[in-house]
Amino acid sequence: MARVHNFSAGPAALPEAVLRQAQAEMLEWNGVGASIVEISHRSAEFMEVAARAEADLRTLLSIPDDHAVLFLAGGATTQQALLALNFAGPGQAVDYVVTGHWSKTAIKQVKPYVNVHVAASSEAGGFTDIPPRDTWQLRADAAYVHITANETIHGVEFRDTPQVGKVPLFADFSSSIASEPLDVSKYGLIYAGAQKNLGPVGVAVVIIRRDLLERAGQPRAEIFDYRAHVARDSMLNTPPTWNWYLAGLMFRWMLDQGGVSEFARRSAAKSQLVYGAIDSSGGFYRNQVVPAARSRMNIPFFLPDQTLTARFLIESRAAGLIGLKGHKAVGGLRASLYNALPVSDAQALVDFMREFQQRNG
Amino acid sequence: MARVHNFSAGPAALPEAVLRQAQAEMLEWNGVGASIVEISHRSAEFMEVAARAEADLRTLLSIPDDHAVLFLAGGATTQQALLALNFAGPGQAVDYVVTGHWSKTAIKQVKPYVNVHVAASSEAGGFTDIPPRDTWQLRADAAYVHITANETIHGVEFRDTPQVGKVPLFADFSSSIASEPLDVSKYGLIYAGAQKNLGPVGVAVVIIRRDLLERAGQPRAEIFDYRAHVARDSMLNTPPTWNWYLAGLMFRWMLDQGGVSEFARRSAAKSQLVYGAIDSSGGFYRNQVVPAARSRMNIPFFLPDQTLTARFLIESRAAGLIGLKGHKAVGGLRASLYNALPVSDAQALVDFMREFQQRNG
Repeated sequence: MARVHNFSAGPAALPEAVLRQAQAEMLEWNGVGASIVEISHRSAEFMEVAARAEADLRTLLSIPDDHAVLFLAGGATTQQALLALNFAGPGQAVDYVVTGHWSKTAIKQVKPYVNVHVAASSEAGGFTDIPPRDTWQLRADAAYVHITANETIHGVEFRDTPQVGKVPLFADFSSSIASEPLDVSKYGLIYAGAQKNLGPVGVAVVIIRRDLLERAGQPRAEIFDYRAHVARDSMLNTPPTWNWYLAGLMFRWMLDQGGVSEFARRSAAKSQLVYGAIDSSGGFYRNQVVPAARSRMNIPFFLPDQTLTARFLIESRAAGLIGLKGHKAVGGLRASLYNALPVSDAQALVDFMREFQQRNG
Repeated sequence: MARVHNFSAGPAALPEAVLRQAQAEMLEWNGVGASIVEISHRSAEFMEVAARAEADLRTLLSIPDDHAVLFLAGGATTQQALLALNFAGPGQAVDYVVTGHWSKTAIKQVKPYVNVHVAASSEAGGFTDIPPRDTWQLRADAAYVHITANETIHGVEFRDTPQVGKVPLFADFSSSIASEPLDVSKYGLIYAGAQKNLGPVGVAVVIIRRDLLERAGQPRAEIFDYRAHVARDSMLNTPPTWNWYLAGLMFRWMLDQGGVSEFARRSAAKSQLVYGAIDSSGGFYRNQVVPAARSRMNIPFFLPDQTLTARFLIESRAAGLIGLKGHKAVGGLRASLYNALPVSDAQALVDFMREFQQRNG
């Protein structure tokens, strides 16, 4: 089978050029006589790979010098727990805005440590909108305000950065980072599992405004201490070197393609194609998110019944489109349109959707 | 440059056959039309890879059914912190035996959470021996006893499993797991970063006696809860799929090669070659560990002066032997002889050592 159109929500499609380079270097990296996955993280060779990846990510996202960048093992969930441990005292107030499944997961991770307050929630409406900023009930003594920039399961995305005053804004950008220009200086902390828009699974990126590292936080192991990780350039312990290397290849590819403004253009094009097919289907396909809050990254959509949904999954797979099953929390179908997915793949999906409707509508 | 003899301490050499398979499958895994790193961890395809890896590891290590097996992101250090959080109450007694650098790191991770007691230490003697069992001062009320089965930096290895009575024995096996038969039933918990004897960096294996999961532990995020990970088959969050897959290829390779009894034979042969070259050098090469505690996995050794050490590193590299620099904590040289390293590589090192001594001795 040839490579297919891959709409997986994460782990997700990688650029073929990145995979080809990793393949070519799998037994022997850059003249060292071994794979990059076989050499010390403290070797001059890997240190250069690591530094280059950070420099490229800083260029890609225009990260200011007063923000530190970490590459840490695992995904976003571990970071969610570390937010409270590092930046809030025991039982201190923290404010969370709830816009879907991942906002709730973020709260679950910090509940043992802090006084969590839901400042706003769109749960009553089935997570189909972002709560208007003027309805948020923020507390002046909160250690931080947390938002989920894009909800991978519910398909809801913040389309601008909310103003939250002097309290630092923390954001889970796992599924939308590097898909459009971002003013990092507006955030106290940004975190993202890499397996959607940044590259491979197994490594997370954390971008922290350095002055926040002075906070005492609460008792924690050294391995849970962001300050210790920053002091050791993410090499406090053995980092996931291969994953870091592959993310670096992806950063370089993204820069070569034109950077985040180009990915903003492509994301708009891809998501307009798919929403267009849904909205022009006369109700055959449905997406319930209000247009202003629709995600450019993850588009959940629904057919009239489960028989058609099952048929859609089988036939789309046979047509070379995979990863379209909706998350079990909401069911239905979902198309994820991350940076590595070409516009032509979104077009292929839309062509299939129209053809499927003609046969089954 | 061709592939070299790689004595790295971790990340370390992988079998060429494993790398070649990963290379062949990099763009397209098993007919799915995408790389294994590009598909959902909840897809039927990856679930099968994950289940196969666990089954093969259970066979390889003869893990009894009353022990659970986890595959978790990151390395051993995170697990060190989780031991206290999951198995000891706040401030409860835990006993640690200190035999080198990594024992001390293990203590550092739990100090914020529990009452740590050093039951025995070989630090006064420069970590050249294992403290005799009859000198250990164990506490009957300890939540567990912790040992480091092999010290990667100091080159000291437990050559049998100590008896510790009714208190569960926990062990860091990062650098010696699967290198010889092991009676898992004697341990309450075994953990290991995979990047030495089990495969790639970025994933850790944790083997837990299931009855211990009933312990309350102390307040912690769900992502730090072993019970939650066991309940979800290590898929509480997105696991490091590629790393898990590569570890699985390594497990299969180890089984195909003859399993742990074969690796015990090879480890004995490799380490006897290198210790033999040291001990027969008339003091030109020195290793200070008492013979009964010498590691079969990591052999630190020293030349008469730093000029010779620097020359050895440059010339050995030119001769196609890499990863021989000692850890900065102890200096000198170090040869790591993990499962993926062929006996012929140890012979190549010994040949080089003898030739180097003839020119410089």
